[in-house]
Amino acid sequence: MRRTPFDTMNCSLANALDQIGDWWTLLILREVIIGCDRFDGIQAALGIARNILTVRLTKLVEHGILERQSISPGGKRTAYRLTEKGGELLPALLALMQWGDRWISGKGREPMIATEAATPRRLPRLILRDAKGKPLGAADIRFRPGPGARPATKSHLDRLQRSRKG
Amino acid sequence: MRRTPFDTMNCSLANALDQIGDWWTLLILREVIIGCDRFDGIQAALGIARNILTVRLTKLVEHGILERQSISPGGKRTAYRLTEKGGELLPALLALMQWGDRWISGKGREPMIATEAATPRRLPRLILRDAKGKPLGAADIRFRPGPGARPATKSHLDRLQRSRKG
Repeated sequence: MRRTPFDTMNCSLANALDQIGDWWTLLILREVIIGCDRFDGIQAALGIARNILTVRLTKLVEHGILERQSISPGGKRTAYRLTEKGGELLPALLALMQWGDRWISGKGREPMIATEAATPRRLPRLILRDAKGKPLGAADIRFRPGPGARPATKSHLDRLQRSRKG
Repeated sequence: MRRTPFDTMNCSLANALDQIGDWWTLLILREVIIGCDRFDGIQAALGIARNILTVRLTKLVEHGILERQSISPGGKRTAYRLTEKGGELLPALLALMQWGDRWISGKGREPMIATEAATPRRLPRLILRDAKGKPLGAADIRFRPGPGARPATKSHLDRLQRSRKG
């Protein structure tokens, strides 16, 4: 299944994408998040082949993104639950969904709306902000090598930094 | 290149994933965002085949996520720039990167750190918040059909909503 060296790249984005696996995985997580948490339900909702769904779910459980929970006394029926790690993918998922709402579906044609649990109020759009809460655009941010940067990452970022100034 | 019906699904997340194309595309966008905006630079940074990179970049330009900009008098040298649409993918990209930092690289081993342009200050973590700014977890949010929901989407969400209550 793995076609890429994303798991060995010195980049948390690439590493994240490696664990997520592929686009289907994000839609599987979408289903679990909206409460469709059983194998047959997910299969029906996505129209995905059963063997592919099995592989994806197994991978998500292995990576600790989902966990299986028995929901009948004999343990015959299983539901998938988000772990803490899985739940923390929500900002990324919602950011992608909101981007699709805005740039593809378009305002007033959103297929699905995320709200607070207690009210029908729409969640605000996820945007970048500085530490004081001021909104930031793409031009307002920079990237510098982190403590885990390998030499190649460091020199790549340093070179880009110099050419930006030069 | 297209293997899935993601562009026809009644879901802005699926539609977004369809336009993004594949994992490589997110890494290409990462390069442009960090300032590595020329074909050869992106190719060298990612070690991606030139023909694959050409296809991905063309698709990104077609979808209005990147645009080509001539950076030499005769127009011989071209750089890729984020459009407004492309720039608005940043929250999703950063959310994925921060998730990888936290759950895969681990604290103190981040390969790359996003900062404000003017200061070396780290950007705060992107988290879900309600309209008043209160942090929300996965359990605190719900999804309801939006104005663009097709009948199948609506009945799927309504059924999940009822089973949650029942």
